[in-house]
Amino acid sequence: MGIFQTTFQSCSGRERTGILSTAHGQVETPVFMPVGTQGTIKGLTPDQVKEIGFDIILANTYHLFLQPGDDVVQAAGGLHTFMHWNRAILTDSGGFQAMSLSRIRMKTDDGIDFQSFIDGSRHLFTPERVMDIQRNLGSDVVMPLDVCTGYPSDRATAAADLDRTVKWFERSKAAMGAPGGQHLFGITQGGFFGDLREEAAERILAHEPQGFAVGGLSVGEERQLTMDMLDHSLLHAPDNLPRYFMGLGDPVGILEVVSRGVDMFDCVLPTRVARNQMIFTRDGVVKISKRLYERDFGPLQEDCACYCCQHFSRAYVRHLFKANEMLAGTLATIHNLTFIRMLITEIRQAIRSGTFAAYKRAFVDRYTAGSDRAW
Amino acid sequence: MGIFQTTFQSCSGRERTGILSTAHGQVETPVFMPVGTQGTIKGLTPDQVKEIGFDIILANTYHLFLQPGDDVVQAAGGLHTFMHWNRAILTDSGGFQAMSLSRIRMKTDDGIDFQSFIDGSRHLFTPERVMDIQRNLGSDVVMPLDVCTGYPSDRATAAADLDRTVKWFERSKAAMGAPGGQHLFGITQGGFFGDLREEAAERILAHEPQGFAVGGLSVGEERQLTMDMLDHSLLHAPDNLPRYFMGLGDPVGILEVVSRGVDMFDCVLPTRVARNQMIFTRDGVVKISKRLYERDFGPLQEDCACYCCQHFSRAYVRHLFKANEMLAGTLATIHNLTFIRMLITEIRQAIRSGTFAAYKRAFVDRYTAGSDRAW
Repeated sequence: MGIFQTTFQSCSGRERTGILSTAHGQVETPVFMPVGTQGTIKGLTPDQVKEIGFDIILANTYHLFLQPGDDVVQAAGGLHTFMHWNRAILTDSGGFQAMSLSRIRMKTDDGIDFQSFIDGSRHLFTPERVMDIQRNLGSDVVMPLDVCTGYPSDRATAAADLDRTVKWFERSKAAMGAPGGQHLFGITQGGFFGDLREEAAERILAHEPQGFAVGGLSVGEERQLTMDMLDHSLLHAPDNLPRYFMGLGDPVGILEVVSRGVDMFDCVLPTRVARNQMIFTRDGVVKISKRLYERDFGPLQEDCACYCCQHFSRAYVRHLFKANEMLAGTLATIHNLTFIRMLITEIRQAIRSGTFAAYKRAFVDRYTAGSDRAW
Repeated sequence: MGIFQTTFQSCSGRERTGILSTAHGQVETPVFMPVGTQGTIKGLTPDQVKEIGFDIILANTYHLFLQPGDDVVQAAGGLHTFMHWNRAILTDSGGFQAMSLSRIRMKTDDGIDFQSFIDGSRHLFTPERVMDIQRNLGSDVVMPLDVCTGYPSDRATAAADLDRTVKWFERSKAAMGAPGGQHLFGITQGGFFGDLREEAAERILAHEPQGFAVGGLSVGEERQLTMDMLDHSLLHAPDNLPRYFMGLGDPVGILEVVSRGVDMFDCVLPTRVARNQMIFTRDGVVKISKRLYERDFGPLQEDCACYCCQHFSRAYVRHLFKANEMLAGTLATIHNLTFIRMLITEIRQAIRSGTFAAYKRAFVDRYTAGSDRAW
C-alpha cells in the first residue's frame, strides 16, 4: 500500500486530486507548501499558518543544519516540536542552497563541499549525511541530495549531473533503510534536454522512490521551456506516486503544472513578494505602496476571507509599509498565502467537477489582464 | 460625575485601584498602556494585543499626523477603525516628538515649528492644531501640547516652560470645547525643582483638567530624583482625577510609581527591548541570544501563560533571533507585554488585599537579584 491515493483523475486532462499520507496527517493534493526556511514561515506564528489552512510546509535542511544545528533540533524533540507545528513537514536536501548560497563550494562524486554562509566554516554534504540530518530534523518527507543543473547548460553537464543524481539517490535510499515514518522522494534532473529528462525519470523510478520530484526547472528559463521539460519528466511517471514540482508558487504557474498532472509544489514567492508590498488579487498583482491606495478603504481583495481583508483596508496596509512596520509583512503574507490557499481549494473543486480547463482559462484571463507583473 | 472612580484606596500607602471610563470601554487601573506609535503595536496584530489583555493603548499624534496624515485616518473612520482596535486609545500631543525627532524646530509662544523627520516638510503645532489632529484621530484620551523641560535644565528654563505649558493648556481646553467623548488631561511640568512641580500642579488644576498627567520625568535623570519630583507633582493631585505618569514601563519603575499613587503609565520599553532580545522574567532581564540558551528547552518564564511560553522554548526564540526572523520580535513582544500585564494583575490584587508593600518588596528583591540590566 503506497503513501499516495488518487481520489479523482480527470478524463479530459492530466489534472487529478489525491491524498498523501504522512506521519503527521493526510495531505490533500494538489497542494502548495509554504516555505519556512529556518523553521518559521517568515512573519507568521504557526497558528496563523494553520488558520489559513495549510497541512504541510517545507523547511530547508541547509539552513537548519547550519543554524541552530540539526543536533539542537533533535535534542528539542525534532522540528515539529521545536517550531510548534504538528502537521506534515517536507525538508529539502540542502544541496541547492549549498551550491547557490556558499561562496566556496565543490562537487565531487562523494558529495558537496561548501562554506557556511554564516561563519565561513567548512562542511561536506554527502547523500548519507543529508539523510542523517533529515532524520534528526524528523521531517515527514525527505529529499535526497541531488545535482541541480543550471540554465543554460550543455548536454554533457546535464548528463553528468543526471548520472550523479541517480547514483546519489541509490546511496540515499540505502542510508535511509527500510521505509518507516519518513518518505523518501526521488528527484529527476536532465537539464533542458527532453530525452535526458525521460532517462532521468526511468532511472530514478528503477530504484523505487516513494514520490516523484522534478528538479532543476524554473531556474531562469522561459515558462514554455519549463512546461516542455516538465512534460518530458512526467511522461513515464506512474500514477501511484505523488508528483512534486520543486520551486513554483505563482498563481498562473500553479495552474499550468496542475494541468500537467503535478500534485505538490512549493515556493518562497507568495511570502517573499508579500514582504515586498506585492499583493495577490484576482485581477493580478498589486503594489500596495502606490499612492493610488492612500485613501482606498476597501480590502486587498473583495471576496477574501483572510484576517487582513476582514479587518484592514488597503490604505492601512499601505500605511504600514510606508511606515516600515513589521505588521505590514505579516498582514501581506497572511493575505498572499490565503490567496494561494483559496486558489488551491478552487482548483480541487474544479478538478472534481470536471471543469478545471474552464476554471483555469477564466482565472488566467482575469489575472493576467490586471497584473503588472509576470507572476 | 467624573471619568474616574477609585475602587480601592490603600490605608497604609498611596496606592489605589480605580476605573477610567472612556467611549471605548472601562479601563481598570493601575494600567500599563502599550505604545503603538504609528497605529500598530510593533510586531503584533491587534487581536494578539487583546488576547494578552490590554484595554487601552497609546498612539503618537506626531507620527500619525505626518504619516498617513490625520485626514486619512479621519476619512477611514478614525483610528479605532483604521487600526482595527475597538478598545480605548490615548494619543499624546506630539510636542515631545516634534522637539526630539526633528532636526530643525523652534518654540514660540504660538507653538512648535518643526521639520518632518520623513521628508523635511515644515509644520506648525499649536495647541489648537494639536486638538484638531487628535479630534480627527478620534482618540479617547487626548493630551494638550506642552513643553517638556529637559534634564538637566536651569530654573529659569523650567519656569518658562511651565508657564507656557499652562497657557497652552488653557488654549487647548478652549479649542476642545465642552467635554464630550474625548477626555482632555492636563500635563504638569516644572523640571527638577520641587516647588515648580507643585506650582505646575496647582496652576493646571485651576483649569480643571479631566486627568492629571506628570510630564518631563524619566528623561535621563536618576530614579531617586524622578520619584522625588513625582512626589512633589502629586502633592496636590486630587483623588478624583486619574494620575498618568508619561513614559515609564520597566517593572521596578511601575511598582515605584504605583506606590506613589499613579494610575496610568506607558512606555515603548517592554516592546522595544523585546525586539532587542531582552526578555522579562521574574528573575530579571535575560538576553535570550546568549549561547547559554542554545539547548535550553524550557519556556522564557516558568509560570507564564503567554502564547510564546506555552508553545516555544528559549532555544527556539534564541534561534529565531540568531536567524534574524520576524517571529523572534513577535514572540518576545508577546512575552514581555504578557509579563507586564501579569505584573499589573498582581499589583491590583495586592492593592485590594492590602499586601502591596510586601508584594512590591518580594518582586523587586527577586527581580533585581537576577537581572543584569537596570530595568
